[in-house]
Amino acid sequence: MSQISIKAGIIGGAGYTGGELLRILINHPHVEIAFVHSNSNAGNLISDVHSDLLGDTDLKFAAETSQDIDVLFLCVGHGDAKKFLSANHFDAKIKIIDLSQDFRLNKADGHILSAEGSNRTFTYGLPELQREEIRSASNVANPGCFATCIQLALLPLAAKGLLNEEVHISATTGSTGAGQSLSSTSHFSWRNNNLSVYKAFGHQHLKEITQSVKQLQNGFSKEINFIPYRGDFARGIMVSAYTEFEGTQEDAEKLYTDFYASHPFTHVSANNIDLKQVVNTNKCLVHIEKHGSKLMVLSIIDNLLKGASGQAVQNMNLMFGLDENAGLKLKPVGF
Amino acid sequence: MSQISIKAGIIGGAGYTGGELLRILINHPHVEIAFVHSNSNAGNLISDVHSDLLGDTDLKFAAETSQDIDVLFLCVGHGDAKKFLSANHFDAKIKIIDLSQDFRLNKADGHILSAEGSNRTFTYGLPELQREEIRSASNVANPGCFATCIQLALLPLAAKGLLNEEVHISATTGSTGAGQSLSSTSHFSWRNNNLSVYKAFGHQHLKEITQSVKQLQNGFSKEINFIPYRGDFARGIMVSAYTEFEGTQEDAEKLYTDFYASHPFTHVSANNIDLKQVVNTNKCLVHIEKHGSKLMVLSIIDNLLKGASGQAVQNMNLMFGLDENAGLKLKPVGF
Amino acid sequence: MSQISIKAGIIGGAGYTGGELLRILINHPHVEIAFVHSNSNAGNLISDVHSDLLGDTDLKFAAETSQDIDVLFLCVGHGDAKKFLSANHFDAKIKIIDLSQDFRLNKADGHILSAEGSNRTFTYGLPELQREEIRSASNVANPGCFATCIQLALLPLAAKGLLNEEVHISATTGSTGAGQSLSSTSHFSWRNNNLSVYKAFGHQHLKEITQSVKQLQNGFSKEINFIPYRGDFARGIMVSAYTEFEGTQEDAEKLYTDFYASHPFTHVSANNIDLKQVVNTNKCLVHIEKHGSKLMVLSIIDNLLKGASGQAVQNMNLMFGLDENAGLKLKPVGF
Amino acid sequence: MSQISIKAGIIGGAGYTGGELLRILINHPHVEIAFVHSNSNAGNLISDVHSDLLGDTDLKFAAETSQDIDVLFLCVGHGDAKKFLSANHFDAKIKIIDLSQDFRLNKADGHILSAEGSNRTFTYGLPELQREEIRSASNVANPGCFATCIQLALLPLAAKGLLNEEVHISATTGSTGAGQSLSSTSHFSWRNNNLSVYKAFGHQHLKEITQSVKQLQNGFSKEINFIPYRGDFARGIMVSAYTEFEGTQEDAEKLYTDFYASHPFTHVSANNIDLKQVVNTNKCLVHIEKHGSKLMVLSIIDNLLKGASGQAVQNMNLMFGLDENAGLKLKPVGF
Repeated sequence: MSQISIKAGIIGGAGYTGGELLRILINHPHVEIAFVHSNSNAGNLISDVHSDLLGDTDLKFAAETSQDIDVLFLCVGHGDAKKFLSANHFDAKIKIIDLSQDFRLNKADGHILSAEGSNRTFTYGLPELQREEIRSASNVANPGCFATCIQLALLPLAAKGLLNEEVHISATTGSTGAGQSLSSTSHFSWRNNNLSVYKAFGHQHLKEITQSVKQLQNGFSKEINFIPYRGDFARGIMVSAYTEFEGTQEDAEKLYTDFYASHPFTHVSANNIDLKQVVNTNKCLVHIEKHGSKLMVLSIIDNLLKGASGQAVQNMNLMFGLDENAGLKLKPVGF
Repeated sequence: MSQISIKAGIIGGAGYTGGELLRILINHPHVEIAFVHSNSNAGNLISDVHSDLLGDTDLKFAAETSQDIDVLFLCVGHGDAKKFLSANHFDAKIKIIDLSQDFRLNKADGHILSAEGSNRTFTYGLPELQREEIRSASNVANPGCFATCIQLALLPLAAKGLLNEEVHISATTGSTGAGQSLSSTSHFSWRNNNLSVYKAFGHQHLKEITQSVKQLQNGFSKEINFIPYRGDFARGIMVSAYTEFEGTQEDAEKLYTDFYASHPFTHVSANNIDLKQVVNTNKCLVHIEKHGSKLMVLSIIDNLLKGASGQAVQNMNLMFGLDENAGLKLKPVGF
Repeated sequence: MSQISIKAGIIGGAGYTGGELLRILINHPHVEIAFVHSNSNAGNLISDVHSDLLGDTDLKFAAETSQDIDVLFLCVGHGDAKKFLSANHFDAKIKIIDLSQDFRLNKADGHILSAEGSNRTFTYGLPELQREEIRSASNVANPGCFATCIQLALLPLAAKGLLNEEVHISATTGSTGAGQSLSSTSHFSWRNNNLSVYKAFGHQHLKEITQSVKQLQNGFSKEINFIPYRGDFARGIMVSAYTEFEGTQEDAEKLYTDFYASHPFTHVSANNIDLKQVVNTNKCLVHIEKHGSKLMVLSIIDNLLKGASGQAVQNMNLMFGLDENAGLKLKPVGF
Repeated sequence: MSQISIKAGIIGGAGYTGGELLRILINHPHVEIAFVHSNSNAGNLISDVHSDLLGDTDLKFAAETSQDIDVLFLCVGHGDAKKFLSANHFDAKIKIIDLSQDFRLNKADGHILSAEGSNRTFTYGLPELQREEIRSASNVANPGCFATCIQLALLPLAAKGLLNEEVHISATTGSTGAGQSLSSTSHFSWRNNNLSVYKAFGHQHLKEITQSVKQLQNGFSKEINFIPYRGDFARGIMVSAYTEFEGTQEDAEKLYTDFYASHPFTHVSANNIDLKQVVNTNKCLVHIEKHGSKLMVLSIIDNLLKGASGQAVQNMNLMFGLDENAGLKLKPVGF
């Protein structure tokens, strides 16, 4: 397989998801980076913006794109992916992986999404939900970070039709989830040693979560109550989710272990988990506890990897028939 | 009132709650510290253990106690308060404020608690619940930190009999909640930038929370689901609690504002809140949001102050007829 | 002394030093806040900007100033104090304490500084250097934060003429030293768990440090090498300074202890020190170690208190004949 | 080269350097882990101790060692490597890489070190100092973390005989430098948002630094003044070092760029640097500034990688004729 070489283009390479994608792709055994487009940084060294890549790459940001690529990653802001594809034509043979939220929600039944102004339809790119569909997809809408972590906590239950009561979720995200834009809630003096809630019961990722749950459990009609917190760390999301569950602890563990048995990045931990177990990896760890009549599921991901750029590469691997974990055997930071 | 001088003794002055109590009492206008007992540090300067007090006090830890005091603070571990009072007799005229959990739970109906081996009965020391009882109490059981923050989020609803469905709580505590004992979950390399859940659905503070809720709403019989998190900050607790609520946002704000109108440390914030607003203060801030059919209440305290030593001084102030906030007008850390 | 009431006005109350000043003054026993001026926030509640003051004050920011004050605090940006005093006349009987760097440097010999466009001369407000001059001053230039911490490490040596070789200083500051302006180096995702050097050998505070050293040791002509670091914490400055010293450890400890004997906020610690000992206090702790031929002095302050607003209040206390520590017996944060 | 497979044994695999070595080796293309010895954890899953490796390896800790290996890594405490080698014989054909400090210092002239009770001589394993000697070495003493970072700041000057005056160094280390032993200075409540100095002027790494400087600049006789700080982050070391330098900024940049031109992990940054650029990589970045008559050199490494286990693998690669960066193209954590 070592002869395979995929030419990749990146739009929006100067942001956080673009940088994280570059950190992965420059070491990916089957990828050649064709261009890294950036309006604001054209002509600058990539290592001048993502300064941790000094010594790892001499690439520069480009003002121009090219059709001589196999895959295009869109690392632009929400709303900008649609605009970009409307304004810029890419050959139909070029696969697209969009990291924005523009194409995550179905226009109609099924999991077909449409780019306005083009004939492209997008497949929702959560491998643990629909790996086979992704393998044959030409265009993938990469899931949101909270959406990924929460779905991986809930989907095994939905797959068995077991989400029959309200679901209660609290989840805390690192600051990189807010990107590199300066804001008062990402000011160090404010956020350091602080904690806060935002968008309670109204986070935009609830839509894609509900969409996936209903894909597996068609009649699901209960509330998913979701309280997102801003944590005082840079990377990672921890989710706790609970709902009524009639089975035993063992039933639940078997259910989750079976569901994720063939998936290389999502694992059920018999021990309690903590966020740093997954930081700088593409993994999701899930831990399950039955308490009284309720099942609590904890799940953790790195928001920039399994929650964004790592999952985008995982999707690319699937779309091009590579090993699912090619380029994604990342050393955990550990501490 | 400036002539009033209360002689205070402290048992267990070398720990975190003992240190925090000292930080308050050395500047309290009506308190004279008679002794600070410590088995492990007798003879040492207090500022050698609580090194931030260098320059503020020349007191030393004592091996001996004395009966020549007006109030005794017990800052010992859970279980050790009962043992200490069984082994050491203090005159009945000496008031006792116990910061452990030993006397928080009623033995029988009413809020009367008993120290084994003595005739002392303890009053549960949450001023927002029962300020008048505390004013006339001789012995006070100071509430737990999570218990304080959660009760202040729920009690106004209970007082109106409005807790009629399950309550869903997630709460995150700073590391000082675990005290000064070294442990793997308080090791900096592990806890820094980390997050984890512990004692889900089974935290010991649920008992005193339920006791207080039932005191206000006698027939309360629903589950209080509580997921505690270990946060990667040193001070503070943030609680989010929600349940079904039929009224409007305005109804809820009026309910909470009225309930806390006469209480100097608990305030309803119309704006969203963040943890550092209360760090290094004895305050609790509460913020309320109605979402769909549910009411979400956020509450924040400093676990070592309103959650421990600050509330202990507040109780002392009440027990001795002082201004409730004497010695407790603390400069917030802000950052 | 309790009848004394000083009317204070604040210019620039919405920034970090203005907020910190307010946190002190609202509890100061001899101060009445007459107005808190802010161009950007006029009409808003102070607790809407400094949200940790919710419940502590109902004051609002004002668009207007008043002559009916005893003291005016200037909490504006560097360069703006001169501009403000040029554009706004205040009666000569109103004392001024300027927290900017505009009046710290002598125009001529002696410690006389001039506000352009006025007859005011400013006294450099480091009490440990010249408390008597401050007591009789009408206008005080409050020292810089690094400048305070470094001077308190060096002045006892200078006072004895013992700075005869180069001085080597490294010092690390918390993020609040950079104020509330958003910037890439105060972005949480960048600064968290990070460290960096800035303005090496060229920090602007070197000028006031050298000025004070020469005031005590007239012929001082050696280099003061100063490397400032940005730390990943919010409050505090730690300085390590070393130079050649012929005496013994005991000589040095006596020298420093004698120098600070009468000063209520600066203490020599026989034990090693750590930054959090002084956070949320107006104190400076100094620790001394002789190694080989060199004397190393460590010093720590809270940059917003002894390094800014706390020292401003200390200066006010001196200028009005109050106890030097009135309103400044602050509970350390400890953790 | 893909057929090459090196069998590696690890002694002390449950500690921080052992865990970090495992994080690298399980993805190393040419290494097969033969055993991971641990007295305390024999029989336990590696992923139960290094829980971030869950899903990455099913290896268990072993109570026994084996002679069927090509290389043995010693990840034991200082002093324990000598003891281990005295008590346990390994065939002379097995190469040894010791991460402790036991064999770093020469017994005699040259860079030959001896293991007591064996005939093994150790080569000091800093590739930028003596890559060719490492290539032909059978036993390598892996440098200390501070020692690595400081040497990489100084060696280009020493190589040209330009260290002719005192050197002044301040350096800050993350908490992982202190390992996993619980201690008061690694207690989260203490260390979070804190800073402190330890072992000023007397850190044990000064010996190996001086040894290497003299190896390049034989007559070096000046003081290296070194103040180590404990930082409030988990990973990384930042060094600032300065000394007199007669040349220009350009001279210095050329000197350093030339010195490191052939070395894949050490790079000269024209831009200012910050610690997180190297976290989770085996890189060292160096930044140079001429100020007045002095040259300041900043250098940064990840203490567990280039400062320990990463450099150990780099040495292994050299000793076995592999690409120097095999298994070490690590994704930076970035944030």
